[in-house]
Amino acid sequence: MKLDFPRYTERLGAVSIHAVQRIYELDSGKSKGFQSSHQTVRKFDYDEISNILHDLAIIIPVKDEKLKLLEGVLSGIPNECLVIIVSNSARSPVDRFAMETEAVRQLGRFMDKRIVMIHQRDPGLAEVFKRVGYDSILDSDGGIRNGKAEGMIIGLLAARMYHKDYVGFIDSDNYVPGAVNEYVKIFAAGFGMSTTPYCNVRVSWVFKPKIKNNLLQFSKWGRVSEITNKNLNALLASITGFETDVINTGNAGEHALSMPLAECLQYTSGYSIETREFVDIFEKFGGLVPSEYPQIVEKGVEVFQIETRNPHFHEDKGIAHLNEMLEASLATIFGSKICTPDQKEILQDQLRHVTKKRVDYSKKYHMLEPINTIHMPEFEKGLREKADTFLRIGRLK
Amino acid sequence: MKLDFPRYTERLGAVSIHAVQRIYELDSGKSKGFQSSHQTVRKFDYDEISNILHDLAIIIPVKDEKLKLLEGVLSGIPNECLVIIVSNSARSPVDRFAMETEAVRQLGRFMDKRIVMIHQRDPGLAEVFKRVGYDSILDSDGGIRNGKAEGMIIGLLAARMYHKDYVGFIDSDNYVPGAVNEYVKIFAAGFGMSTTPYCNVRVSWVFKPKIKNNLLQFSKWGRVSEITNKNLNALLASITGFETDVINTGNAGEHALSMPLAECLQYTSGYSIETREFVDIFEKFGGLVPSEYPQIVEKGVEVFQIETRNPHFHEDKGIAHLNEMLEASLATIFGSKICTPDQKEILQDQLRHVTKKRVDYSKKYHMLEPINTIHMPEFEKGLREKADTFLRIGRLK
Repeated sequence: MKLDFPRYTERLGAVSIHAVQRIYELDSGKSKGFQSSHQTVRKFDYDEISNILHDLAIIIPVKDEKLKLLEGVLSGIPNECLVIIVSNSARSPVDRFAMETEAVRQLGRFMDKRIVMIHQRDPGLAEVFKRVGYDSILDSDGGIRNGKAEGMIIGLLAARMYHKDYVGFIDSDNYVPGAVNEYVKIFAAGFGMSTTPYCNVRVSWVFKPKIKNNLLQFSKWGRVSEITNKNLNALLASITGFETDVINTGNAGEHALSMPLAECLQYTSGYSIETREFVDIFEKFGGLVPSEYPQIVEKGVEVFQIETRNPHFHEDKGIAHLNEMLEASLATIFGSKICTPDQKEILQDQLRHVTKKRVDYSKKYHMLEPINTIHMPEFEKGLREKADTFLRIGRLK
Repeated sequence: MKLDFPRYTERLGAVSIHAVQRIYELDSGKSKGFQSSHQTVRKFDYDEISNILHDLAIIIPVKDEKLKLLEGVLSGIPNECLVIIVSNSARSPVDRFAMETEAVRQLGRFMDKRIVMIHQRDPGLAEVFKRVGYDSILDSDGGIRNGKAEGMIIGLLAARMYHKDYVGFIDSDNYVPGAVNEYVKIFAAGFGMSTTPYCNVRVSWVFKPKIKNNLLQFSKWGRVSEITNKNLNALLASITGFETDVINTGNAGEHALSMPLAECLQYTSGYSIETREFVDIFEKFGGLVPSEYPQIVEKGVEVFQIETRNPHFHEDKGIAHLNEMLEASLATIFGSKICTPDQKEILQDQLRHVTKKRVDYSKKYHMLEPINTIHMPEFEKGLREKADTFLRIGRLK
């Protein structure tokens, strides 16, 4: 893979946000690379990518998506990665989770891939969470909450169990296995460029094709992304005093984290995960409020935004979904303790356009605690004993 | 890459036509592969693929396609391959070829790729063809003919100049760089599985999405492909006496050849190139008429058909184009000297549905001679001296 070195960087306390980087070549093979000493393009040969992939787990949250799409996504993930599928699919009247495990087992036979599967609502798993004292993932009945963030947390813990240094998230509604392959390599390239152990890699889609009048239109931006990015940039500007357009992955569906960073972050349920990641990093390491993590502040946090070469063809989830996403993103910025009063006012205005109701967002978007409080040996032992849906495929222990 | 070993094979004289092979994984990294001794899935690790790519030239015929698409295609081709762009784009009123060279030069700077470019209608190139006695590529005015096959021939000769063992053809109207990347790896996997130096690798698209009622439909077959495949299979059956459905790449847009095989084949102009390739291989090595190439008959010819994981999103060229393609494909089978009288009658019926006119197809689809008659040192010397549009990018001599 060949891509730009970051062309400029905004800094907020210990956080470096690199501007979007462009990819020139998906596959640089074993070429010697540029011979001049002056370099503005970074080349990753296959060995370098492969070394990082060995330490990378790809977490795929699944919720009733078509099996054909999941199959395609699996075929696009490089063999070196550990795959972690966290399913929140229906178990009745049709047991979709059983269909998923059957399909994955069948493919696993031919792919020789290492895959972990688990169902998010596994009662045994809920019991384990209770035992290790991680209550914020549980609902009032003692089961595991229903959101996407909860699935991500389960995936993160599975990745920790297998001692992975990096985790990447890839949605299972992607039509193009080759694009999935690119996302994984983008994650690897980002981690490979990072100079700190605390790193967030975000995918920026070059095009998000839409269908209009029975023709494909290669749109650059969704409306929601545009608004989220504008507000995140305004948040930065209101703090630093300099206007900026550095952020363009406020709603990036595909993103990755180094484990030492992932362990400290707090996620919120609903569709605000990607925006929350930004806001949480700013809050914890941006220097505006005292940080609980001086060791991270000392080394710094890097955020990479890398633009794909592949257009993003995915399942269209409709307008209601878009509105939910917009509300969640705006409310996440609005609710941040680093949001300035001016900025809050602007956001409240925008939120009023999205919904007429008065909403208590701190209740609507439930906050999950960092996973670094969980005692891993206890969690692992519990999981192996109690979670009936915990499956391992491809000679995994 | 992991893919099926061929599950069955039809044989016609010295020709083995392998049934479609399925891909399980795009990227097998450096994994050790299957540990059991019983194998039905073939694994190519990255080193194996890379070794073949070093000997592979990718020929991209260009004709007024959008530059953005060409850029994407280039970004998807692995760095190890030599890229040969043969442009037949307009040179006036707007010099599109100049725009193409500018775009490719600009990208070349960032990609560090080895790229050859040439314009198909270069008068100097025409002069060289005349000098080496390759007249079948020339029109009555002494210029180079206008078809796609003529561009392919020029690409083949450029690949020979750079001593490449394999050539693959990839169209420049592809929306998905990741799919292009897969095509190239499919070519490499095919050549890697081949047991003879005479090998044809054909890409079978898993889906060819169409837009209906503003929704993407993942269709498996185009109408033209379906008819072409049916007739090619019927041709085989009429010879062997056994019905078959082995052929499903009669109109494969993406295909590759080992150079020793490519040198002997005859191409026809128009849209019949891919069908012609099959028919030509059957004619020359199928054992029905005496072969001029006993050394090839002795070693055998293998045809691989490999199904992509990526759907094929490409520019829609409209219905007129489809009809031309259908006519060309049917006429190619109809005109073959190995076509049985019964089969000819059926084809004539079908052709009457496509066009009411009486057409002399041997004139309409002009035949190009094999390039193995061309004296390469003379061709190369002439090309370097006379062809003004012959460009080399990326430290290529």
